[in-house]
Amino acid sequence: MIAQVEPFHAIAVSRLAHDMEAAGTNVIHMEFGQPSTGAPVRAIALAHQVLDNEAMGYWESVPLKDRIAQSYAENYGLDVEREQVILTCGASPAFVMALSCLFRPGARVALARPGYVAYRNSLKAMYLEPVEMECGPDERFQVTAAALDALDPVPDGLILASPANPTGTIILPQELAAIAEVCRRKSIRVISDEIYHGLSYGVPATSMLEHLPDAIVVNSFSKYFSMAGWRLGWLVVPPDLIDAARARMGSLFLTPPVLAQKAGLVAFECREELEGHLETYARNRAILLDALPKMGLGRIAPPDGAFYIYADASDFTDDSLSFCTQLLRDTGVCIAPGIDFDPVDGRRFIRFSFAVSTPLIEEAVRRIEPWFAARRVTAPA
Amino acid sequence: MIAQVEPFHAIAVSRLAHDMEAAGTNVIHMEFGQPSTGAPVRAIALAHQVLDNEAMGYWESVPLKDRIAQSYAENYGLDVEREQVILTCGASPAFVMALSCLFRPGARVALARPGYVAYRNSLKAMYLEPVEMECGPDERFQVTAAALDALDPVPDGLILASPANPTGTIILPQELAAIAEVCRRKSIRVISDEIYHGLSYGVPATSMLEHLPDAIVVNSFSKYFSMAGWRLGWLVVPPDLIDAARARMGSLFLTPPVLAQKAGLVAFECREELEGHLETYARNRAILLDALPKMGLGRIAPPDGAFYIYADASDFTDDSLSFCTQLLRDTGVCIAPGIDFDPVDGRRFIRFSFAVSTPLIEEAVRRIEPWFAARRVTAPA
Repeated sequence: MIAQVEPFHAIAVSRLAHDMEAAGTNVIHMEFGQPSTGAPVRAIALAHQVLDNEAMGYWESVPLKDRIAQSYAENYGLDVEREQVILTCGASPAFVMALSCLFRPGARVALARPGYVAYRNSLKAMYLEPVEMECGPDERFQVTAAALDALDPVPDGLILASPANPTGTIILPQELAAIAEVCRRKSIRVISDEIYHGLSYGVPATSMLEHLPDAIVVNSFSKYFSMAGWRLGWLVVPPDLIDAARARMGSLFLTPPVLAQKAGLVAFECREELEGHLETYARNRAILLDALPKMGLGRIAPPDGAFYIYADASDFTDDSLSFCTQLLRDTGVCIAPGIDFDPVDGRRFIRFSFAVSTPLIEEAVRRIEPWFAARRVTAPA
Repeated sequence: MIAQVEPFHAIAVSRLAHDMEAAGTNVIHMEFGQPSTGAPVRAIALAHQVLDNEAMGYWESVPLKDRIAQSYAENYGLDVEREQVILTCGASPAFVMALSCLFRPGARVALARPGYVAYRNSLKAMYLEPVEMECGPDERFQVTAAALDALDPVPDGLILASPANPTGTIILPQELAAIAEVCRRKSIRVISDEIYHGLSYGVPATSMLEHLPDAIVVNSFSKYFSMAGWRLGWLVVPPDLIDAARARMGSLFLTPPVLAQKAGLVAFECREELEGHLETYARNRAILLDALPKMGLGRIAPPDGAFYIYADASDFTDDSLSFCTQLLRDTGVCIAPGIDFDPVDGRRFIRFSFAVSTPLIEEAVRRIEPWFAARRVTAPA
């Protein structure tokens, strides 16, 4: 029997949204985790030059690997060598690479529930066993060292995401250190998804590499760098996995897009523009954190980072997919159902992605406020 | 134990070539299977427009899927539906997707030896068992229906490549039909790598879909369309695998690069420019087929298509990797060692990729002629 892999339900909602747009409805897209802004202006300018001057074959950028390695010194004070950096076609295949380097079929890999749908699906597609750890508001929806240590049997691996999708919660440094200690003691291999690093609203996230040098880190240009459709990501692998990772990259994926690699290098020099996006997200987050509780969505995970709000909508629904579909049909505001992130409790959660412009967030609030008011069955939280 | 995956040896040779170039040596790159030309002019012009006007998020082009589906009617008289077309970040991940949709760990998948290194490596990385079928000059280095039918035990799957890498040989329609008959009779699932379709020098290649509608076809924009570094490929999957393929794409890879999808659609309208590349390859092929036998490389697989010549160099070496390295050091001509394609007999084969300009092919011949002459130990074939 071939592994069953669940579809992304948000894609179905998004398709409906696009159909509605084609039929003339104005839609505000808050269903996917992607900036509505494009790549930095200077990165685009460089891409124009490359288009006119290079044939673009199979190619891997050494300067980009150097620049990424250097960013670990700048951001975390860590020493990462060029060869530890493996460039990929986005974080999704990077994650596949990481799993392939660490585990063989049947291995058990722990992860938080709720969590990004592709973790669970990719594990299943690769015949690895997801060990879902239920993480509620008390644990800020994150794996804790104590919960990990209590797992019996001990899992072979652990996937961490901080800031997390769908919640935006960050694992604090002392907890990350405690998780690292458990992993070292019990030989649990860690994949740390750090794709939302750079996007935080208080204390910045720390890298798992600060605590556990043999972790594999996944990151990409899709979030902070605002280059989702360029398809460029990377792995940082420990020295003992460089050969395994390089060989897998060559056979499973070959090389990432040339234009993205060239433009990505320039994007590192565009901090000012990118920090401007972060300021927009901070404004949007504040608007939603003010407005949503007033609508009856008061139980919200603390969005320390990323650009999501994961809200408990149990006062309104126990079927988040049809709830989001109806919200879209009635208001043109498109958000993601919690079932993508949590097949159990996600039926009563919804996720707002606020990586759009502030006027759109304000307009979305205006549209959904009366809709929620009309549906409210219990007193506000 | 994690699967051992062999590196691409041509990459090591190519790295040396780039080091030599950095040190001032003029190098002719014939080691990789990539056109030295860029994307069609009109595709590049469209890419400039997109860069200036679109934010480029996670996106899948419906018009491109339609255009690809339509090409099956134009090229083979086949009826392919839009939803059967799955867009990928190149043929390599398309192949991973195909394997994932069809097989679970432990499945046995037959393939020709010699063959493209990534087939064997990807199978191993996914814990599938490669069943290598030795294919020599008598079988034009291709799987035959008779050889497949004789396999005991019956394999679960079969990988075909026509035109093939490294040999360029095409499986003739009647043989392809006979292979399809065996596969139907014995329930062998087929992945047909048709990445070199459009590049043939006599009779065009036929698609396995003409004979076996439930085959999965892999193709890409890297060869005929001359867009290797843009990273865009596709699968055609039978209707019963659409859901499995879509779900895997969403989790394992997400979406292909936006710019490549936009430019790829235009590339379909650039036949004249692309057929010009094919004329160049035809000239290059003729030059090499004339020159190489005179140097003692007379035992050459018939390069019906693609842009390779796979030559038996056993009069010169039984260590193709060090042979290619020495050839590079002495002449600046970089070619691929046979061991990438055949771990057994490949020690005495070498592969020339002739997808470069004709003046470069002429210059390469001028450089290697005296080098081979000096090394010749037996009489010319």
